[in-house]
Amino acid sequence: MAGTRWIYAFDDPALPPPDARKRILGGKGAGLSSMTAMGLPVPPGFTLTTEACVWFFEHAQAWPDGLAGELQAAVSGLEARTGKTFGDPSDPLLVSVRSGAPVSMPGMMETVLNVGLNDATVVGLAEASGDAWFAWDSYRRLVTMFGDVVREISFAWFGRAQDAFLAGRSLQDLSADEMAALTRRLLQVHEEQGEAFPQDPQVQLKLAIDAVFRSYNSAKARYYRSTQGIPHDTGTAVNVQAMVFGNLGPTSGTGVAFTRNPKTGVAGLFGEWLRNAQGEDVVAGTRTPQPLNDLEAEGGETLQEAMPAAYDELVRIQGILEQHYRDMQDLEFTIERGTLWMLQTRSGKRTGTAAVQIVVDLVSEGVISREEALQRVEPKALEMVLRPIIPEGVERPVIARGLPASPGAATGKVVFTPAEAQEAFERSEPSILVRIETSPEDIQGMTLSQGILTARGGQTSHAAVVARGMGKPCVVGCSDIQVDLSRGLFYAGDTPVRRGDWVTIDGQTGEVMSGKLEMLEPQADGGAMATLLAWADDVASLSVRANADTGPDAAKARQLGALGIGLCRTEHMFFQEEALAAMRRMLIAEDPRSRQLALRDILPIQRGMFADLFRVMDGLPVTIRLLDPPLHEFLPHKDEDVSEVAASLGVQPERLRARVDDLSEANPMMGHRGVRVGITTPEVYATQVRAIFEAAALVSREGVVVLPEVMIPLVALPAELERMRGLVVETAERVLTEHGVTLKYKVGSMIELPRAALLADSVAVHADFFSFGTNDLTQMVFGFSRDDMGKFFPDYQRLGLLPESPLATFDTEGVGQLVKLGSERGRAGNPQIKLGVCGEHGGDPVGIAFFHTLGLDYVSCSPYRVPVARLAAAHAALADRAGA
Amino acid sequence: MAGTRWIYAFDDPALPPPDARKRILGGKGAGLSSMTAMGLPVPPGFTLTTEACVWFFEHAQAWPDGLAGELQAAVSGLEARTGKTFGDPSDPLLVSVRSGAPVSMPGMMETVLNVGLNDATVVGLAEASGDAWFAWDSYRRLVTMFGDVVREISFAWFGRAQDAFLAGRSLQDLSADEMAALTRRLLQVHEEQGEAFPQDPQVQLKLAIDAVFRSYNSAKARYYRSTQGIPHDTGTAVNVQAMVFGNLGPTSGTGVAFTRNPKTGVAGLFGEWLRNAQGEDVVAGTRTPQPLNDLEAEGGETLQEAMPAAYDELVRIQGILEQHYRDMQDLEFTIERGTLWMLQTRSGKRTGTAAVQIVVDLVSEGVISREEALQRVEPKALEMVLRPIIPEGVERPVIARGLPASPGAATGKVVFTPAEAQEAFERSEPSILVRIETSPEDIQGMTLSQGILTARGGQTSHAAVVARGMGKPCVVGCSDIQVDLSRGLFYAGDTPVRRGDWVTIDGQTGEVMSGKLEMLEPQADGGAMATLLAWADDVASLSVRANADTGPDAAKARQLGALGIGLCRTEHMFFQEEALAAMRRMLIAEDPRSRQLALRDILPIQRGMFADLFRVMDGLPVTIRLLDPPLHEFLPHKDEDVSEVAASLGVQPERLRARVDDLSEANPMMGHRGVRVGITTPEVYATQVRAIFEAAALVSREGVVVLPEVMIPLVALPAELERMRGLVVETAERVLTEHGVTLKYKVGSMIELPRAALLADSVAVHADFFSFGTNDLTQMVFGFSRDDMGKFFPDYQRLGLLPESPLATFDTEGVGQLVKLGSERGRAGNPQIKLGVCGEHGGDPVGIAFFHTLGLDYVSCSPYRVPVARLAAAHAALADRAGA
Repeated sequence: MAGTRWIYAFDDPALPPPDARKRILGGKGAGLSSMTAMGLPVPPGFTLTTEACVWFFEHAQAWPDGLAGELQAAVSGLEARTGKTFGDPSDPLLVSVRSGAPVSMPGMMETVLNVGLNDATVVGLAEASGDAWFAWDSYRRLVTMFGDVVREISFAWFGRAQDAFLAGRSLQDLSADEMAALTRRLLQVHEEQGEAFPQDPQVQLKLAIDAVFRSYNSAKARYYRSTQGIPHDTGTAVNVQAMVFGNLGPTSGTGVAFTRNPKTGVAGLFGEWLRNAQGEDVVAGTRTPQPLNDLEAEGGETLQEAMPAAYDELVRIQGILEQHYRDMQDLEFTIERGTLWMLQTRSGKRTGTAAVQIVVDLVSEGVISREEALQRVEPKALEMVLRPIIPEGVERPVIARGLPASPGAATGKVVFTPAEAQEAFERSEPSILVRIETSPEDIQGMTLSQGILTARGGQTSHAAVVARGMGKPCVVGCSDIQVDLSRGLFYAGDTPVRRGDWVTIDGQTGEVMSGKLEMLEPQADGGAMATLLAWADDVASLSVRANADTGPDAAKARQLGALGIGLCRTEHMFFQEEALAAMRRMLIAEDPRSRQLALRDILPIQRGMFADLFRVMDGLPVTIRLLDPPLHEFLPHKDEDVSEVAASLGVQPERLRARVDDLSEANPMMGHRGVRVGITTPEVYATQVRAIFEAAALVSREGVVVLPEVMIPLVALPAELERMRGLVVETAERVLTEHGVTLKYKVGSMIELPRAALLADSVAVHADFFSFGTNDLTQMVFGFSRDDMGKFFPDYQRLGLLPESPLATFDTEGVGQLVKLGSERGRAGNPQIKLGVCGEHGGDPVGIAFFHTLGLDYVSCSPYRVPVARLAAAHAALADRAGA
Repeated sequence: MAGTRWIYAFDDPALPPPDARKRILGGKGAGLSSMTAMGLPVPPGFTLTTEACVWFFEHAQAWPDGLAGELQAAVSGLEARTGKTFGDPSDPLLVSVRSGAPVSMPGMMETVLNVGLNDATVVGLAEASGDAWFAWDSYRRLVTMFGDVVREISFAWFGRAQDAFLAGRSLQDLSADEMAALTRRLLQVHEEQGEAFPQDPQVQLKLAIDAVFRSYNSAKARYYRSTQGIPHDTGTAVNVQAMVFGNLGPTSGTGVAFTRNPKTGVAGLFGEWLRNAQGEDVVAGTRTPQPLNDLEAEGGETLQEAMPAAYDELVRIQGILEQHYRDMQDLEFTIERGTLWMLQTRSGKRTGTAAVQIVVDLVSEGVISREEALQRVEPKALEMVLRPIIPEGVERPVIARGLPASPGAATGKVVFTPAEAQEAFERSEPSILVRIETSPEDIQGMTLSQGILTARGGQTSHAAVVARGMGKPCVVGCSDIQVDLSRGLFYAGDTPVRRGDWVTIDGQTGEVMSGKLEMLEPQADGGAMATLLAWADDVASLSVRANADTGPDAAKARQLGALGIGLCRTEHMFFQEEALAAMRRMLIAEDPRSRQLALRDILPIQRGMFADLFRVMDGLPVTIRLLDPPLHEFLPHKDEDVSEVAASLGVQPERLRARVDDLSEANPMMGHRGVRVGITTPEVYATQVRAIFEAAALVSREGVVVLPEVMIPLVALPAELERMRGLVVETAERVLTEHGVTLKYKVGSMIELPRAALLADSVAVHADFFSFGTNDLTQMVFGFSRDDMGKFFPDYQRLGLLPESPLATFDTEGVGQLVKLGSERGRAGNPQIKLGVCGEHGGDPVGIAFFHTLGLDYVSCSPYRVPVARLAAAHAALADRAGA
């Protein structure tokens, strides 16, 4: 690295080129340099590059040749600019030392302020500032911060010594002499912990820089990087900057500001400040910060009132920065005796709602283009727009972690059964339904709860799929909890949580927290989102449908912009009470006639449900998947349930038990389900098809445009589809003839088994459309089941073998090969074929990007993911254009 | 079909070319024409072609233009050759009408004899033959046969009328007048059943021909064709032949002969005959046939003694036919007043033993080449050479049908538990172990039984795999039976079969029969097989290894010619009593130290077992698969077992139950097993690897050449293999260093998940070898589990959707694509890689042919299938040469 520069002054005439600046100078350093270049008031300073940090770790924490010299020169430059001298006992130059990686991350050392103070210079500072209390307070801060972050002396030692000294008084109560005495006491703590506080300012600076470098490799930072897929060799920069003081009396202060509201996205300065304080006081929580202005009604003395000139200057600077960065900024500033100084600018964190509002506003303000607006918003952020969240800064007493299954946060009292959820609902108490795992009988209880927590199951388990369909927060596969129903509690680790206790779950992070946490309700009516998504639809080529099973779900999906139903699961139609009883009669019937009679009772129920769907989706296609789960799911399994159901059916419990045993399976996922039921028990499929076309005939006579698409699940053999297509067409034609109605319909195949993908050319001959069922396909390609992967997946994640569940994030490398091959061969076998995806990956941006490259026609996902999918489809199309 | 000839005389100068003859004339017609051409004594006749039959079905059972005319000409030709006239009342020409498809099949009409007799010609026949009894007996036969097979009048009507007439006498007791009276009574039966017997010989002939055609499409024939994969449009030929009479007194007779013994293959005429009888008497069982000669000690008057001239002529003809056909022939003949006439020659059916003996003898006789000998024997036939079978002709009282899982027949008393099997063994009673399904605890009981029958499970279920490994007959997935252990019986349909009742199973057909059936024990010492297989090895390029887990299995495999172990499953090593207890302690251990201690107890047991294997396989590679099944298989599941095991481990039953529940899985096949256990609990794999290399070090110091190959199961991610390779190499190197031994070893991967095949290039980087686990791969590609497919597969088979289980017969179309792709990419990723197959398909000829075309290095199968695989590998190589 001969010739490498290790340090750049903020006003360096030869800064790294703009596109490399953040990588080399870190985010903070780049921002400070840029603001300096814009002529904004930034205290002078310089940045040690990330490359210095990388070198440091590659060479046993040594400094590269030249760095010490460059540092000396940089400090001299600072002295020249400020007219002060580092270590000058009369009027010392003081500096802050701050980390600043290219991407900010927790665990990194933040700040050491007031470097350069010692027993001698503190006196000079007191004289120069005319404020001895301030000088000693600044020294006190350095001694404490240095001890904490550089020496790694537990903060508690300083806290205890300070508390003993204060004996109940506050720091403000102290005289300057007392402050000096306190500081001397804290200097003793250093000695008590083994080493005296270094009096040499050069040594302070060197040690502080090393500490920043080292913090880049703290366990916490490493962990964060591995969970985020950030490489470990990017390094952090170090910013050394002349101090300005917000604690120089009543005309001084410090604060943070967002250029737009980070919760709602509404334009206008948003933030808080503290009079007579240094930076860490704002975040430490020892004093309560005040609002900057009265745009938000939070009370307190606003900066606008207290220091109108500084405030106006801040507003002016905000405008300049937004114009420059073309995005909402997060600012740090200090006011020293009435003069405003900028200490940081960076792109501000924001909620999904704010993200959308901001880009839509920036487009209308003419700052960015629609395409840029689309690209600026992460698709997954949209899922949060309509959900409650836990606001930033609220403390999270996490008691367990599971898999995030459906985003949004929910708080409520623990219930363990659907019946308890019902009771809580009737008492108007919010509840969280806690189950080992859910089954179709729990659906009503899930509807009535605020959120769902399960001990077992993966991201495509029943609970997860249903909760996403309902738009309800859900955490699954939480193996940290043990549910003990007999005692009406669950253990989170060793902590018992009883029925009726408050808990909060975060379906975005998978966290389970004790108590009732503050919630931030959805902030927007979705107007900005609708605008953004309309732009998205203009550029996207994949269309987005929804997975919806009922009229209300379909209505929600249509409202969120779905252009059809890509998957209606018909299982739930058999779980409706009357239908379930009839289904059970069908399953224990011993002759075809009783079986037929039982199915006849199911027909009108299903017809009504299909009619609802068709009406809601007037003019749009509705893809209906014939029965998919194994038949034993419709029979009870526990002994007591068997007795009860047997009684209700009027058969001997032994007979029912025998039938249950008969239908039970070693591996139900790979069992007698899907088209296999259609082949062995064609009357079940025939009944469903009749219900579909009777409903279609009925509704189309009402003037509704019905476009039914009948889909056969779990096809492995072309001959299966050929046979089932025959059954569908024959039944459909008979029903339509009976009703004197003509309408167009399609018959297609799920492609969810590897064999169907491999033989897609032969399957396609019998199909009007394919719908890739990427959930099952992923399970078969990996050979693991969603219900069981919780046993080993956490280890795989921890070891970095598989950073994300392929059920949540599409496996383009493996499963993708089969989808690609299935698409190509499907088109070879039938050039007219329509191709879609209806697995969970229909709402996964990674999947959508991949499906776009294959030129598929549509994706289908749960209603609440439709916005995500529409935006992801636009991203895919834009990336395509950019690549082309 | 203008210009098509529909009829060929046996001596036609323009017969179809030899390679089309069987297709056009059927097997029987081709044989008769060929014998005629050889100058052998064949009564003159002609053949209606299969093409006529096909035309018949394509045109609503009409005759093609020209057929009637050709028939008239052919009959005239016959009249000219015989000097008799069809329908001549003084000396009538009589003919037989017989079916003769290209492939013989059940359900086809066999024969109508004596066509041409009527009330008038019977008198002429009586005069011309000088035997009125004979003439009326012949007419009686025609009336009955024609009624039965042409008119489809139930044979019972004739039987009843005849029995009433005989009133206890035999037919031989009747006078000629009485025979005439009986015949007239039987003619009445025709009228009673609605239609008079046709007196016109031309009409008789036309109707008989139509009946043969129609029988080609009988339900039974169609069913047979669909199960055998024979198309339904090949048609049958019809042979019309001048009658010769074996029932013309004591110098006449009829019989069947094999040119070699069809059970043993020993050379020499083998068969039986009846004096003064027509063909159907031999098979009808009303009289007991006599042996042809005294080569077999069966008693009775031999043809050789009774009619030495005719016998010598038959011996002469046998020689001519074997020379011509170069194979063992199955002959039918009739002797009319001392003159021998040949009525049929065809390739004879034979046991596996005979098939091998015959081709080996034919080679030594210089009749065929070694290559031809190899091609003549079906590989699967070899599996039967060493097993007992139920002889041809023994009646099979089938009470249930399951899946054929391990060939050979077994008879014994029903036992339901391993303990009962033990008791029966101690009483020296043969037993059949009947289980719902088997588990590793049943292995001892399986060893002691003659055969195994399970109600559940597929062809790769535990019972099936273990039984094949033991070479023991086994029927699985027999859903026709319901086991009721509490009552000590099972139901086969409605038939109860109690503990101690005799049953017989046929593991080749899947049949379960009541009672103790006659068994044919293996007929050979395998000497001929060894000769044949040595020739096979000379031409094969795939080498054959065996799946063997223990020293004795390995010894058997080596004896049968295995060139290594391709799969040693290590599960059983954990089921050994002491190991199991330790394993359970390991599983409930709560800290790493107790876990380590428990594993330390397993180590020496496994080391001993590996040492046994290595010693037996001295100089040959031994591939050892690390633990594959899920851990919960090592824990008890039933409440009573949990209590017992908890007591033996000294823990609370609740704690053990909790651990069992914790490990239980929704879909164990896709659960926490294989490499996933290696990743999450590396100490288990490390213990196994240590045991392997300690054993290897020990044994190699004894002078044994040890070639261990460690195989990682269920790999889906290249990173899994990379990590496990690290663990294996590190452990192996440490152990070898400790023992001061150096040896070569390999580390490889099972390729049994689609993802591993799709990413084989990346997996191969970490692998010295791949072994395709086609069982799991097939399950994943089809998305069904071997344990559950019994629920729907029979319907799939019945409907012709999937004629054979892809677990038994390799799916070249679907699974084959992944094996091909995995091989190609594996070689691309690592050109040195060795490729093998260790699934059940390693012993499946279809699979072996496919694996040969991919150029794999070896297949591995159960020891008793090694001969099958060796021969199949030779077939594949020969087919390759022929194609090249």
